[in-house]
Amino acid sequence: VDYQHVQVPFEITLWIMLASLAKIGFHLYNKLPSVVPESCLLVFVGLIMGGIIYGLNDKSPPVMDSDIFFLYLLPPIVLDAGYFMPSRPFFENIGTILLYAVVGTIWNVFGIGFSLYGICQVKSFQLQDVSLLHNLLFGSLIAAVDPVAVLAVFEEIHVNEKLHILVFGESLLNDAVTVVLYKLFRSFCEMPAIKTMDVLAGVGKFFVVGIGGILVGLAFGMISAFTTRFTKTIRVIEPLFVFLYSYLSYLTAEMFHLSGIVAIIACAMGMKRYVEANISLKSHTTIKYFMKMWSSVSDTLIFIFLGVSTIGENHEWNWPYIFFTVIFCLIWRALGVLVLTFFVNRFHVNTVTGKDQFIIAYGGLRGAICFSLVFLLPEFHRKKLFIAATTVVILFTVFVQGMTIRPLVDLLDVKKKRESAPTVGEQIHIRFLDHLLAGIEDISGHWGQYYWKDKLEYFNSKYLQKFLLREYDQPKSSIVLLYEKLERKHAIELAEAGQLGHAPSPPPLLHSAFPCSNSHRSVTTDGKPEDILNPDVLENIQEILARNLFRIRRTVPAYNRHTLPGETEPAEQAKEILILRHRSL
Amino acid sequence: VDYQHVQVPFEITLWIMLASLAKIGFHLYNKLPSVVPESCLLVFVGLIMGGIIYGLNDKSPPVMDSDIFFLYLLPPIVLDAGYFMPSRPFFENIGTILLYAVVGTIWNVFGIGFSLYGICQVKSFQLQDVSLLHNLLFGSLIAAVDPVAVLAVFEEIHVNEKLHILVFGESLLNDAVTVVLYKLFRSFCEMPAIKTMDVLAGVGKFFVVGIGGILVGLAFGMISAFTTRFTKTIRVIEPLFVFLYSYLSYLTAEMFHLSGIVAIIACAMGMKRYVEANISLKSHTTIKYFMKMWSSVSDTLIFIFLGVSTIGENHEWNWPYIFFTVIFCLIWRALGVLVLTFFVNRFHVNTVTGKDQFIIAYGGLRGAICFSLVFLLPEFHRKKLFIAATTVVILFTVFVQGMTIRPLVDLLDVKKKRESAPTVGEQIHIRFLDHLLAGIEDISGHWGQYYWKDKLEYFNSKYLQKFLLREYDQPKSSIVLLYEKLERKHAIELAEAGQLGHAPSPPPLLHSAFPCSNSHRSVTTDGKPEDILNPDVLENIQEILARNLFRIRRTVPAYNRHTLPGETEPAEQAKEILILRHRSL
Repeated sequence: VDYQHVQVPFEITLWIMLASLAKIGFHLYNKLPSVVPESCLLVFVGLIMGGIIYGLNDKSPPVMDSDIFFLYLLPPIVLDAGYFMPSRPFFENIGTILLYAVVGTIWNVFGIGFSLYGICQVKSFQLQDVSLLHNLLFGSLIAAVDPVAVLAVFEEIHVNEKLHILVFGESLLNDAVTVVLYKLFRSFCEMPAIKTMDVLAGVGKFFVVGIGGILVGLAFGMISAFTTRFTKTIRVIEPLFVFLYSYLSYLTAEMFHLSGIVAIIACAMGMKRYVEANISLKSHTTIKYFMKMWSSVSDTLIFIFLGVSTIGENHEWNWPYIFFTVIFCLIWRALGVLVLTFFVNRFHVNTVTGKDQFIIAYGGLRGAICFSLVFLLPEFHRKKLFIAATTVVILFTVFVQGMTIRPLVDLLDVKKKRESAPTVGEQIHIRFLDHLLAGIEDISGHWGQYYWKDKLEYFNSKYLQKFLLREYDQPKSSIVLLYEKLERKHAIELAEAGQLGHAPSPPPLLHSAFPCSNSHRSVTTDGKPEDILNPDVLENIQEILARNLFRIRRTVPAYNRHTLPGETEPAEQAKEILILRHRSL
Repeated sequence: VDYQHVQVPFEITLWIMLASLAKIGFHLYNKLPSVVPESCLLVFVGLIMGGIIYGLNDKSPPVMDSDIFFLYLLPPIVLDAGYFMPSRPFFENIGTILLYAVVGTIWNVFGIGFSLYGICQVKSFQLQDVSLLHNLLFGSLIAAVDPVAVLAVFEEIHVNEKLHILVFGESLLNDAVTVVLYKLFRSFCEMPAIKTMDVLAGVGKFFVVGIGGILVGLAFGMISAFTTRFTKTIRVIEPLFVFLYSYLSYLTAEMFHLSGIVAIIACAMGMKRYVEANISLKSHTTIKYFMKMWSSVSDTLIFIFLGVSTIGENHEWNWPYIFFTVIFCLIWRALGVLVLTFFVNRFHVNTVTGKDQFIIAYGGLRGAICFSLVFLLPEFHRKKLFIAATTVVILFTVFVQGMTIRPLVDLLDVKKKRESAPTVGEQIHIRFLDHLLAGIEDISGHWGQYYWKDKLEYFNSKYLQKFLLREYDQPKSSIVLLYEKLERKHAIELAEAGQLGHAPSPPPLLHSAFPCSNSHRSVTTDGKPEDILNPDVLENIQEILARNLFRIRRTVPAYNRHTLPGETEPAEQAKEILILRHRSL
């Protein structure tokens, strides 16, 4: 037997296999996942595994290597999060999210750091050798909400979209703050004296790390979109580029000490739209499927490793320090959310309610990022205490908060995610209001979110699309495509009901397909609205309407200063529909 | 800049990116791939890359690490080959393939080894220090035809199915022989004296390595199929199991010094049927797509690395040795094919023609496996000579043979792969003959291939399927499914032509769906046969007929001693069709 030779890939494969089998195991019993979140079960499996390894070898099981975590396990999860990020609620709440992520995290870091330093001054706790700087360093790693943990728990409780994006967006974007503060305090710990300049440089660094990450990500995203322009003859490697470029953006950002998480999210959000238009449908399925699969395996491995790494002799136990760490984490987060939301609500009509605030504060779960950071700390005599405190905080948030948050959401009657997609009517009205507001903002000279969105769309269609999309020269009218799709669906239904050619067929769906609001009416007045208005079709209709309404608004004489009336597009659309109509008669 | 930290994943990603971009580059100019095989172009890119690295660093560029090749690059390609192996021609020609793979490879090893030893005796060549054993060791690594190279070239020249499977099957299955002989001679080189026992043990080892590989592969394949029974609630990780289990089979085989290639092929061929029945359609698309993508990237990387590794100072140049190696590789392969085919043709009605023999001999391409094996040789003073000879042989076969084989195939007018799929009529007759022959063999007591095939099918449906398939209890009649599919297709065509409800609809496709030969007739007598008989549908029809005919044959009173007449299945099928008919009226 030559085990040495195959050891590395063999053990990696076995770990992934264990993770996958554990996942299958939980889902075999349908009741289990509805009571206990999967993350708790996985940590539990990890604890058992760790116990077995510890018992057999009589030495601590291997802890999760921080490099493996940051280089291999974290990127797939963040990529998945960025690629499937609902962009509308994200950009609508970007101000609030940034406030929570930046100011909130700084607040937590200093709050926890200083109050723990206060605890260290109590003589009977025997903690006087922990300096203020070490406490702040510890605060910087324990303060950040963890995207992996948040995602694992919030995916199962289905709170409303806004609440979800607030917590989840914060957990992703606070990475820039965490990176800066953690590295800053770590370098301060090693410096003999700290000058004011260093502190100021730290503040400046934050902008470099965050904005640099965004720029790196967007650059790679654009290159990726551009590359997929040329894959028409070799479809089979298309999915590869999405993974390669986003991973490269992460690694490049890490290499320059920028925020890798921010970079990969910017890359994924930037490229998605163009890549999807360029690649084939099968490549798209593969990308979606593989991304979900990969992130789900990474996620599983992280929680199992968290459990395994908990067992062992890495811990120094000090009741007061650990107890107060948990308490301060809870208190400072709650206070931070209260204060920040107070300011947010003063400037917004659509306020964050008290219940929402409670869930935001309570959903501040800590996870594997803290855990990896604490192991990356330079060696000093109280490192094991920090490891113990971090482990307890993570287990507390994952088990206690993770398991009680669902009952609490039910108890408080927090607004849930709506089960049904918004109706076509709602969708049209939302779009209409968007355009109206963009126009009002344009006239009044107010540079608000609608103004910028409109400008971005204009820039996109005028320059980016021509450069990044392969088939921009031959735009297909998606309303015509929808019509064909609905007709086809209808025909299939008829065929399945066996009525093809027997029953008098209902009139074709599209009497006067243009303008679009009519298309909606003709769908609802059709003989079998309940069949056609199922969620799938609705979603498609909305997507298509969303795209077309934009195009129409831009091409008819509008408040926009950049376009002249009388562009050709509507005429072409009408012509296409006429041709189709003609063919069908 | 912290390059050290991200170096490993960064460089891997960059290499993969280079490979993918090179692939896209070639395909941008459509004429290039039709003249020069992709493998040549990739080696060429590698040579340039290697030259650049050599020029910049003034030291040899890194050679392809044998471990990386065998553990990470080779498995995806072999998995792809095994998973998409056309099983019918493979099993029909298994005897011939094994003869070429086992006897042919041994013939080549000893032929090349002994004649090179003869060359070494010529004093003026200054090669007297190369012993017989070293020549045999060299013969064992240079003799084996390489699956990666064969696949890359034969995929582009489209020779007939039998010829393709003969060369390709040989290149896969000779791995067991190569592994045994290579390890045997290597251990002999290190032994002080060789006993007869050792030689006998070597012969015995061959069976262990080959059959052990098959058993390991089949075991993992069955476990994999069994696992996918339980993934219904968690579809997203289904594709993972195909990759994990087949990789585990490869690693396990390698660990026990068995043939990893044989193991992974047995695993893939064994699990395919059951896994595909258990998993969802989207998972299936993902598996197919990802496997193709992965193997294509691996393949690209291997050829690029081959080029890069060629540049440098690893070579000792000795004209006679290198020249005669190339010559002997060609001569012994040609002789081997001639002699073995002579025996094969004596026992087969469907003979291997002279042209086929020429292409088999000429298609004996060497590739990256030889290259990795020669670097794995223990250090001795003539290792660099072996490396040089191997490199030349590989480059000669890839460039000269690879580039001339397509013109030769055209010139000799070798029978090509038929472009169109066989008609339904042909398919039915082939199936009919299969069953007839199985019956004849059963009656006459001759244990031929049809007899075993029939027994295997019986065992499969009686035991394996029940154990490995999730939905075996509710078998769906696939003829009914086909009917539904055709109706649906028909309806879509109508809808697309705009004739839904206007034109008098042609009668439903299925007048009397049972027995199956009628289904064929009704398709061809339909109004628009050219639409329905396109390759896609035909393929489906064939697949379905193939499965159903088997079922019908087994369930009506047959020559089979295991079944009693009057089982319920045909009745059920008929009932289902009746129900469907009823619903449609």
